[in-house]
Amino acid sequence: MRATVMYKAGDVRIEHVPDASIQNPTDAIIRVTRACICGSDLWPYNGGPNVTGQQMGHEAIGVVEEVGRDVQRLRRGQIVVMPFAYSDGRCMFCDDGLQTACVHGGFFGNGGEAGGAQAEALRVPQADGTLYPLSVGEDDALMPSLLTLSDVMGTGHHAAVTARVRRGGTVAVVGDGAVSLCGVIAAKRLGSEQIIIMGRHQQRIELARQFGATEVVSERGDAAIERVRELTGSFGVQSVLECVGTEQAIDTSMSIVRPGGAVGRVGVPHYTTIPGAQPMFFRNVIVAGGPAPVRAYIDELLPDVMEGRIEPGRVFDRTVPLDGVPDGYRAMNEREALKVMVQP
Amino acid sequence: MRATVMYKAGDVRIEHVPDASIQNPTDAIIRVTRACICGSDLWPYNGGPNVTGQQMGHEAIGVVEEVGRDVQRLRRGQIVVMPFAYSDGRCMFCDDGLQTACVHGGFFGNGGEAGGAQAEALRVPQADGTLYPLSVGEDDALMPSLLTLSDVMGTGHHAAVTARVRRGGTVAVVGDGAVSLCGVIAAKRLGSEQIIIMGRHQQRIELARQFGATEVVSERGDAAIERVRELTGSFGVQSVLECVGTEQAIDTSMSIVRPGGAVGRVGVPHYTTIPGAQPMFFRNVIVAGGPAPVRAYIDELLPDVMEGRIEPGRVFDRTVPLDGVPDGYRAMNEREALKVMVQP
Repeated sequence: MRATVMYKAGDVRIEHVPDASIQNPTDAIIRVTRACICGSDLWPYNGGPNVTGQQMGHEAIGVVEEVGRDVQRLRRGQIVVMPFAYSDGRCMFCDDGLQTACVHGGFFGNGGEAGGAQAEALRVPQADGTLYPLSVGEDDALMPSLLTLSDVMGTGHHAAVTARVRRGGTVAVVGDGAVSLCGVIAAKRLGSEQIIIMGRHQQRIELARQFGATEVVSERGDAAIERVRELTGSFGVQSVLECVGTEQAIDTSMSIVRPGGAVGRVGVPHYTTIPGAQPMFFRNVIVAGGPAPVRAYIDELLPDVMEGRIEPGRVFDRTVPLDGVPDGYRAMNEREALKVMVQP
Repeated sequence: MRATVMYKAGDVRIEHVPDASIQNPTDAIIRVTRACICGSDLWPYNGGPNVTGQQMGHEAIGVVEEVGRDVQRLRRGQIVVMPFAYSDGRCMFCDDGLQTACVHGGFFGNGGEAGGAQAEALRVPQADGTLYPLSVGEDDALMPSLLTLSDVMGTGHHAAVTARVRRGGTVAVVGDGAVSLCGVIAAKRLGSEQIIIMGRHQQRIELARQFGATEVVSERGDAAIERVRELTGSFGVQSVLECVGTEQAIDTSMSIVRPGGAVGRVGVPHYTTIPGAQPMFFRNVIVAGGPAPVRAYIDELLPDVMEGRIEPGRVFDRTVPLDGVPDGYRAMNEREALKVMVQP
């Protein structure tokens, strides 16, 4: 079968690899019908963590092709969402709704034991706990939005939940990538009254406004902090959705959150310590977040997608076949595309 | 009147100072009937922040002696608890139950505009929002426990709340000072099943056990972390109550909290950054806490004190008159006394 392999920073290829096959009785094989490229894929693409021949991709919708003998909840032919992490659905962390800490879990497309989703097919460990069956056809018009339930929409929602977004509250969303835009959707959905998007890319900002952003801060650094304070009666916001992961992003987040507020981090941190531990303390600021347990959130988000109340699929502004994936990486990296959908 | 003044590190004296008097129409004057010495008073005593002639003390019970013309809820002769921070009770932060961020608020005994509570009397700004009237006599047997509602019991409770202690949950309490012991009471009260106290002082550990601690870890550093992991099936605890504030305490806290768990900080941090921002992220760990809004917690804690279900007053193991305060600082600093009550 064909799959996406990153050989080194900047070098992504479509290669023939051994066919996905059942290795454990709890596995399933899915034929990938939709996948996509994630902002986090650009980190190794830019030389962040070193990769040498890693299968890529962790977001997918697919059709169940084969199940291991211990798989009970799934059957051939079902259309399923594949969250970016696999999980057994039975451990204490899964019970707590934190599937990304599952004791038998792991991540797709990061060089671990599971393969990558930017491929024709994929082995899914812990299939019963991981895959979420849908009641739609393979080419339903809602596919782009359904696909976001595998990562970006659930991740934006996690940012909002961990930042304790509340009805009538004030929110700032740091960044204008696909996760940030889904963060805007999530904040709006949870009832925020003021949603400040912090970004500069005109088309993305426009989409953020359509998703519910009420104000835009396009300044950077201290000027951005000053502007958010102006917009919030000098206090800052109750909830900061940190969707970037850079040192500047966390510095800004800690400076624009008001006393008693929370920073929900979903941008993979490139920094090693949380700054300002003393002001954070004296202001009773909460820092939370991490890899989103998107599996837990599908129950809650799916009805809103199915009934069109939210349209996170609008973050996709380009669709490519598998052969187009390398150019998709290039386009996202150059901010020419916001988020690229892959139709293998 | 006489009051406690710290001239410099290690130099605490009882001095004659100008009588407390109404300065603003929202002030009240209380005659202090009980005060105490706080672990945080030992920080300047040991040369932490530099002080030069600062009135000390921020925990008190007293009798209302005089009220300003705008004070409406209080009258002469009432017995009141004085939380360690004053607050107007009307701003957005007070409405949120975060009185320690009140826009018209501040702290007692820290060199700010309000005086210190280790004194014969005290001016209380924002008296209506700050003081909490009690229905007991001036020498009620419950006075020691009622006094803890001004700080340590509310602070231990805040550690538990911000560490998201839940019924049936697992908890570690870092430290064996008075706040830590109140943290044990709070964790037990909120239904924790496993409460690990991390400390070495035999009498305090014994009291922690009586308050509800189920296990003791007296090791330090890596050995302590290893021991907590052994006691928790290798995962760590759901809630860490960080009641110390040193770099070692936060390092330990971050290492013993399990994925999805929370660290509630109430020890004033002597460190400037939160360590381990990446493992914290990948494990979805929450860091929260700060100066406790003890005013908000009195409603909830007072009935348990009045009906004897909790006895936080047992943390006092010495009572001194005002003249004994300097020796009280010495005794607490040398860990000869756990917590010293002052009867001016």
